[in-house]
Amino acid sequence: MGDGERVVVDFRTDPSRYKHWTLSFDGPVATLHMDVKEDGGLVPGYELKLNSYDLGVDIELYDAIQRLRFEHPEVGAVVLTSGKERIFCAGANIRMLSQSSHGWKVNFCKFTNETRSAIEDATASSRQVWLTAVNGPCAGGGYELALATDWIIMADDGSTTVALPEVPLLAVLPGTGGLTRLVDKRRVRRDRADFFCTLEEGIKGQRAVDWRLVDEVVPRSRLAEATRARAVELAARTDRPAGARGIGLTPLERRIEGDRIAYAHVTCVIDRGPGVAGITVAAPATPPPADLAGIHAAGGSFWPLAVARELDDLILHLRANEEEIGLWVLRTSGGADLVEAHDRTLLQHEADWLVREIRLYWKRTLKRLDVSSRSIFALIEPGSCFAGTLLELALAADRTFMLDGERQGDARPPATVRLTAMNFGPYPTVNGLTRLASRFLEEAGRVDDLKGRIGEDLDAAAAAEAGLVTFTPDDIDWEDEVRIAIEERAAFSPDALTGMEASLRFGGPETLESKIFARLSAWQNWIFQRPNAVGPKGALKVYGTGERGDFDRRRV
Amino acid sequence: MGDGERVVVDFRTDPSRYKHWTLSFDGPVATLHMDVKEDGGLVPGYELKLNSYDLGVDIELYDAIQRLRFEHPEVGAVVLTSGKERIFCAGANIRMLSQSSHGWKVNFCKFTNETRSAIEDATASSRQVWLTAVNGPCAGGGYELALATDWIIMADDGSTTVALPEVPLLAVLPGTGGLTRLVDKRRVRRDRADFFCTLEEGIKGQRAVDWRLVDEVVPRSRLAEATRARAVELAARTDRPAGARGIGLTPLERRIEGDRIAYAHVTCVIDRGPGVAGITVAAPATPPPADLAGIHAAGGSFWPLAVARELDDLILHLRANEEEIGLWVLRTSGGADLVEAHDRTLLQHEADWLVREIRLYWKRTLKRLDVSSRSIFALIEPGSCFAGTLLELALAADRTFMLDGERQGDARPPATVRLTAMNFGPYPTVNGLTRLASRFLEEAGRVDDLKGRIGEDLDAAAAAEAGLVTFTPDDIDWEDEVRIAIEERAAFSPDALTGMEASLRFGGPETLESKIFARLSAWQNWIFQRPNAVGPKGALKVYGTGERGDFDRRRV
Repeated sequence: MGDGERVVVDFRTDPSRYKHWTLSFDGPVATLHMDVKEDGGLVPGYELKLNSYDLGVDIELYDAIQRLRFEHPEVGAVVLTSGKERIFCAGANIRMLSQSSHGWKVNFCKFTNETRSAIEDATASSRQVWLTAVNGPCAGGGYELALATDWIIMADDGSTTVALPEVPLLAVLPGTGGLTRLVDKRRVRRDRADFFCTLEEGIKGQRAVDWRLVDEVVPRSRLAEATRARAVELAARTDRPAGARGIGLTPLERRIEGDRIAYAHVTCVIDRGPGVAGITVAAPATPPPADLAGIHAAGGSFWPLAVARELDDLILHLRANEEEIGLWVLRTSGGADLVEAHDRTLLQHEADWLVREIRLYWKRTLKRLDVSSRSIFALIEPGSCFAGTLLELALAADRTFMLDGERQGDARPPATVRLTAMNFGPYPTVNGLTRLASRFLEEAGRVDDLKGRIGEDLDAAAAAEAGLVTFTPDDIDWEDEVRIAIEERAAFSPDALTGMEASLRFGGPETLESKIFARLSAWQNWIFQRPNAVGPKGALKVYGTGERGDFDRRRV
Repeated sequence: MGDGERVVVDFRTDPSRYKHWTLSFDGPVATLHMDVKEDGGLVPGYELKLNSYDLGVDIELYDAIQRLRFEHPEVGAVVLTSGKERIFCAGANIRMLSQSSHGWKVNFCKFTNETRSAIEDATASSRQVWLTAVNGPCAGGGYELALATDWIIMADDGSTTVALPEVPLLAVLPGTGGLTRLVDKRRVRRDRADFFCTLEEGIKGQRAVDWRLVDEVVPRSRLAEATRARAVELAARTDRPAGARGIGLTPLERRIEGDRIAYAHVTCVIDRGPGVAGITVAAPATPPPADLAGIHAAGGSFWPLAVARELDDLILHLRANEEEIGLWVLRTSGGADLVEAHDRTLLQHEADWLVREIRLYWKRTLKRLDVSSRSIFALIEPGSCFAGTLLELALAADRTFMLDGERQGDARPPATVRLTAMNFGPYPTVNGLTRLASRFLEEAGRVDDLKGRIGEDLDAAAAAEAGLVTFTPDDIDWEDEVRIAIEERAAFSPDALTGMEASLRFGGPETLESKIFARLSAWQNWIFQRPNAVGPKGALKVYGTGERGDFDRRRV
């Protein structure tokens, strides 16, 4: 949307409310039909022709991915295809992009990227393999959607092609990981990728297979049958329990009252002056269920799952609707013992499909935090419970303050932090390493040493010594030190902070995800600002008018 | 410089013409004093106060690095320090940045980044170890210069600090690899790096050592002595021959006549209509010297060294002075046998210090090509000599056309390409892999297979089958196919091409260099366009006026 408008985006939905997708099931194979409603755009001003999409379409897709994992343990393969006769998907809607502010475009691309990554995570980790049946022209974001799946079958007919026409047509990049997935995931030779990415009309038939752009082509008449056969074959390899019952992702309760956003376990208070969101995650009030049956019975109200859903929704809400809130300050409250008890449950039952899903959901939610273009501080104070899974919040922060000793007038004991085994593997960040390993890139031994301290309550001195926190002011200095740090952060240029954080957060090795979020996105953001794309004569602006973009020819 | 002005930048210089640096020698230790002349700016409009630098200062630094390698085999360590009393270096000149066009800023940062990488390459590969003696405040680009060296000694006094104040002071990033080198090279913990990069005043003394920002601090009175001791110690580890004689890098002959740029072996013809530079590299006219003595006697006129220097200068010239020429079309001419003979010489004498330098120079020059924001096509036609080292030019191209068969009216035999052992190791690109390995990321075995074909003349069919070229039109199709490809390329948005090429050229693994050139630079380019940095109230614009930047607070 443009700079003047304001729509509050709600990421909560369910299949009964889908406008653009239909989900159907046939034993171990689910099929997701994309059938975008032309007049169903999230904001006014454009029509979603040719199965093109906007954020609203992607919100439903994201919901479908989540529900398939949690509500359908019996599904081992998911077919993505078009519900329209003559088109697979034309990609992101151009008029929507053209009328959107820079921030909206960037946030839209980030969410769609995360959703594509979620498809890959479902395939690799949930063993719910996604495949695509390309049953019509498949361009731009449409092909990028296919690229996120594990197998692409394409109809071999006169009109079905795959294409990334963004550069020649729109003067922007394929914004959802397409370039990276071509060379790094599908290993398309770079000179062929170069040619393909400048070809408006795309590539079809056997050449698409030869160039590794798709995995197989079949005659149009055989597409349904071949897709079904491939899906059944892929589904047969899953370890998901065919006979299990899923758990329902019941509607998420959220109350927004003025500047306060409250869920069952997560609350957020916005301070608009400095642009700060204070986010507090509460420990569970009770011990975890005694056995797996209890966890399954608790379902969406099992604390780790409930908190992951709430945090996920809050992050999405703040990113889309609270652009001026540049600093997120994370706190926890409650008993570390109960947090640790839940971590033990997550560890003990890791082989269970539902527990696996909950762990994976936390992994993705923490990554969403990592890639958010907001500064993140964590405050560790008396009464907090930064243990195990919740300690990851502090490890995700750009900077952590831990109060050393007691607070005057506060009877609670000094703050401590506690490591659990959940800090040593299940939650890798986008570089593929755990947050602890990313933190101690220089000394692998340090992470091993910390393993020996699992379960210990580390006070401020011990946490600082262990390298887990940044600063440990005492009660006398705390207020000033934290206040000044927050005020200073709020005064810096938001753009410079975004670039700085993206550069410092992802040290060490690189992955498909880190390349997409920290590199490809940076180039796209740059291009999204250039007059050649978005100026009055830019390609995005003149698209559809019959005019060609008028470019400043200088190479930068 | 601003959009309206035009200065032709010449990258050729020598110590007798240095304005800003002095080189001195003491046995195996060279010392480079930075003593920037305030009124010695490359373009009018700013004063180079506080040892701040502009492109002109960096051109001299680059020349010094090259000469130290080629002209001083006896030097094993290079001390970088300030020639001024009270300041080490304040970084890139802010007024210069503030008055510069977007393209100038980006090109300036690219060259300075390459120069910092050249320091690291000298240290690691030429065994000429660089170290820094920080003898006064060392901020921004000044500290980034130190970060490129292998050892940083800092005076422990009241005023000497290291700092990266770009974010708080200027709303831009440290533009010369600082963020990446902090976390990925020096393994500074990311929360400390976050704090350090928001601290205008920097960090001094023991804390700088504890946080790994510098390697040692010594009292001011002992700085010279400690530096000398460390330099002698580092120099003692080199394998460079103390008794050898260097070769002089004689002035590079270049004639620019209208749109034609001619060196001894490299010529470039600019076609301003479509914005194309046709670059032709000529094979040597004679066989290589029969022995090492002959190579040393030939010095700068030894063909591989001469061509590397010419190509290097041409790339720099085109990047700085021909922004609107967006496509470089590479050709070669002459006999492949003579090229291969020179490759054999480079292989046979790889242990010789001079031959090593020549190979390293080619490595760096080819990388400079890789990171240039220009489209690159290679045309392989009858009469060409894409063999070994020159074949790397085709492998660096985004796309390669090879004429299949004879050309009507041309008596020369059909074009062939030829692999030599130089294609299998000495010239890694910025991702650390050879261009062949980068090309065949999907199948390691293919590179091994190609090793078996070293020395073979591969015609178009064989080259296509081997995956070495993109398209192989015959004489009937050649002209149209190449012309259309060139015309189309010229019509696309230059910005979109830059982002696309940066994303496709560097598949596979990542290195410090790839992170700097393909990621950090993208973020910086984005920020360099944002109103918060360069708008009328942007921090870069108001710097020095006493005003603070007025920021759009929305996070993107």
